[in-house]
Amino acid sequence: MGLPKREVLSVDLISINDLSRDEIMDIIKDALYMKRKKDSVPILKGKFIVTAFFEPSTRTKLSFHRAIKGLGGEVIDFIPSVSAIQKGETDIDTLLTLQAMDIDAFVVRVRRNGAPSEWKEHIKVPIINGGDGTNQHPTQALLDMTTMYEHFGRLDLKVAIVGDIIHSRVANSLTQGLLKFGAEIRMCGPEEFVPRHYEGVSLITQSLEEALDGVDVIYALRVQKERIEKLPLNIDEFFRRYQINHKTIKLAPPHAVLMHPGPFNRNIEVSDNIVYSERSLILTQVKNGVYSRMAVLKRVVA
Amino acid sequence: MGLPKREVLSVDLISINDLSRDEIMDIIKDALYMKRKKDSVPILKGKFIVTAFFEPSTRTKLSFHRAIKGLGGEVIDFIPSVSAIQKGETDIDTLLTLQAMDIDAFVVRVRRNGAPSEWKEHIKVPIINGGDGTNQHPTQALLDMTTMYEHFGRLDLKVAIVGDIIHSRVANSLTQGLLKFGAEIRMCGPEEFVPRHYEGVSLITQSLEEALDGVDVIYALRVQKERIEKLPLNIDEFFRRYQINHKTIKLAPPHAVLMHPGPFNRNIEVSDNIVYSERSLILTQVKNGVYSRMAVLKRVVA
Amino acid sequence: MGLPKREVLSVDLISINDLSRDEIMDIIKDALYMKRKKDSVPILKGKFIVTAFFEPSTRTKLSFHRAIKGLGGEVIDFIPSVSAIQKGETDIDTLLTLQAMDIDAFVVRVRRNGAPSEWKEHIKVPIINGGDGTNQHPTQALLDMTTMYEHFGRLDLKVAIVGDIIHSRVANSLTQGLLKFGAEIRMCGPEEFVPRHYEGVSLITQSLEEALDGVDVIYALRVQKERIEKLPLNIDEFFRRYQINHKTIKLAPPHAVLMHPGPFNRNIEVSDNIVYSERSLILTQVKNGVYSRMAVLKRVVA
Repeated sequence: MGLPKREVLSVDLISINDLSRDEIMDIIKDALYMKRKKDSVPILKGKFIVTAFFEPSTRTKLSFHRAIKGLGGEVIDFIPSVSAIQKGETDIDTLLTLQAMDIDAFVVRVRRNGAPSEWKEHIKVPIINGGDGTNQHPTQALLDMTTMYEHFGRLDLKVAIVGDIIHSRVANSLTQGLLKFGAEIRMCGPEEFVPRHYEGVSLITQSLEEALDGVDVIYALRVQKERIEKLPLNIDEFFRRYQINHKTIKLAPPHAVLMHPGPFNRNIEVSDNIVYSERSLILTQVKNGVYSRMAVLKRVVA
Repeated sequence: MGLPKREVLSVDLISINDLSRDEIMDIIKDALYMKRKKDSVPILKGKFIVTAFFEPSTRTKLSFHRAIKGLGGEVIDFIPSVSAIQKGETDIDTLLTLQAMDIDAFVVRVRRNGAPSEWKEHIKVPIINGGDGTNQHPTQALLDMTTMYEHFGRLDLKVAIVGDIIHSRVANSLTQGLLKFGAEIRMCGPEEFVPRHYEGVSLITQSLEEALDGVDVIYALRVQKERIEKLPLNIDEFFRRYQINHKTIKLAPPHAVLMHPGPFNRNIEVSDNIVYSERSLILTQVKNGVYSRMAVLKRVVA
Repeated sequence: MGLPKREVLSVDLISINDLSRDEIMDIIKDALYMKRKKDSVPILKGKFIVTAFFEPSTRTKLSFHRAIKGLGGEVIDFIPSVSAIQKGETDIDTLLTLQAMDIDAFVVRVRRNGAPSEWKEHIKVPIINGGDGTNQHPTQALLDMTTMYEHFGRLDLKVAIVGDIIHSRVANSLTQGLLKFGAEIRMCGPEEFVPRHYEGVSLITQSLEEALDGVDVIYALRVQKERIEKLPLNIDEFFRRYQINHKTIKLAPPHAVLMHPGPFNRNIEVSDNIVYSERSLILTQVKNGVYSRMAVLKRVVA
């Protein structure tokens, strides 16, 4: 397509695998440090960060906005319009155009797996991947690991990921991140929702009982109702077997915590009364999201 | 629903009745003080205010943005997307999530009456109600009272509210606010648009002549054309009887002023040529809206 | 309509013809000066600029946002909603309302030719026209002239504008701007896309060969595919005769550059592999857009 090739190397965060174990631990510690000390140093002062969410996401985008502004940076929010797409401009043309406006970094989200990896061949400024298709969501993994480390003081944990795993970029990034720290990862869900094999994962099972036995963390994923309805399984049967609620959580040890990347579906993958219970770290994840993203921005942009 | 209960008490502004007569007067005087001295003290520096308008409103939201930024604060603008609602998250979940991002206050607007009162049971940071259904719109009442006080130097005025009163949160908040100051409130409109009785209101009438006799303020409300069309009344008859124009304004004394919460319908509840006439305080209301909201933010957040 | 008349005169930028030759050169030199020295003086600190794009445009709006924030100003972004228009408020009412919020300038875009000229009769703060219908787009002309001056060191150039000229506000502003500097302007496109006569233009032709002979600048315009399909011309014939690609660019001298206002249609008016080639100044135009708009804001608002 006659695209420019980037000349200067920059630090990007496209995949959790772009980071070594030590780099991840640096980000976690920096995030927790920023969380503790209240007023933050404006290290992004005079920096312009473009959030370009080609696939809409309010939650992740606002978390980034909060993080960028909290560090004194300026947000340029690119919102793809129907009209712009009709105008025939491709995503990479949009990014090259925005880059030409003298901006300092991109945070992107896109439906197509691998698109950010392609883009970084042509874009000079750093790209932070805010989620690409079913592939990667590295800042979610970092905030999850920050939350686990904050709670347990270590990351060589037993973690059961429950739900629609094969469609989940969150599951990918989290699994790959935690494996660097010697965690034991289990995947649990109906046959149609779990992979047959996953590099480094110790257990892939359809039994929640088996999955939660002795775990430290129950990590529930969003499950789209429409996808449940397509399962051979009856929907009530799905709830009985895979919903995390006050009954099923007893399959895990008393010290085990509940996590979820949000937004959750009340009374689908998690029950109403458990999401804000004492066992749940869901809102802590959201809070740590801001500080983990600050730590990433500091590393990548500042 | 297993929601967290708030532990720390905060100052909220959900209803005009949350404020005493003295507190309202403090806000009015502070608003007028801020309006006079041009450059404002950045008392919201480092504060993050979320505007969460579940029911869209450009005008009120931008007025808040102007006020927040004018005081040096940062805006996080939550725009509910169709997709987010489809994702099954409830409004209170959204607010709890946004609150977890370490923000300092919410400005909300919502279609459902009473929703902000429910939310404040679970939200720790202050909530400013930017309008809930047909119930309350306290900052509108404050800016209206600021405008009346600025113009007349007192609030024990004769005020005729004209139009679709039963569907109007503005009428509720304004009436209840002014009654604290001994104002005489009259309500006027077709039978279908006025209540049969309203606590403290001295006159409820279908006659504009009666309503405007001797008043200080004519407060015209927005009237949706579709609602007029459903009246037994012919639409031209509605205009003849209830539209404020250069002819009907003569029913009021020469010193009486025209006010309107905006956005107005030209040539429906008000005529084209009266909205920016010398008799109209409509643009003054808009200007005072910024400073009244600054005064509220100062009280609630700073 | 009973609109207020403005009392205080302000500097606006509605048409490129609002500026003399000297004023244009001042803006160009100021833009290039701002581009060179990296960190910009916050001359818009405490100023509120409303971007009111009644016709959507991501690219121009974000360029203005970047420019405003780069100079330390605050953006209030008015996004017209379907609901607001349904509410019956006219555009000028919207602007009068926003102006009442104590803001310092407007940047507008609108579908209707001449609307900004009408508005400035009633609006006190400066208006910068970000494009009205097929009429004017003065900041685009300024960034284009900045780019030409930066590249050639002069503006008495031979410029061929190619494409759908009669629907193009860009062609109008650029032609009228360049003519002040003694440039030689040629217009080229199918009969349906070019005017029969254009004041000051030396050549209007359907032959690309004739148009590009000896030029310094090839200025390609966006062409909507739907419009090509309505031409008597076969679409492949259109591409063969008017698309700028590595073959047709040879009709121009080796020193000639390619420009385009963006967003471009890959493989319609320009070929895939030429837009980011060494011959193309397209991304330079985007970059200069930020600094030209800074120079305009400095002149009009600061």
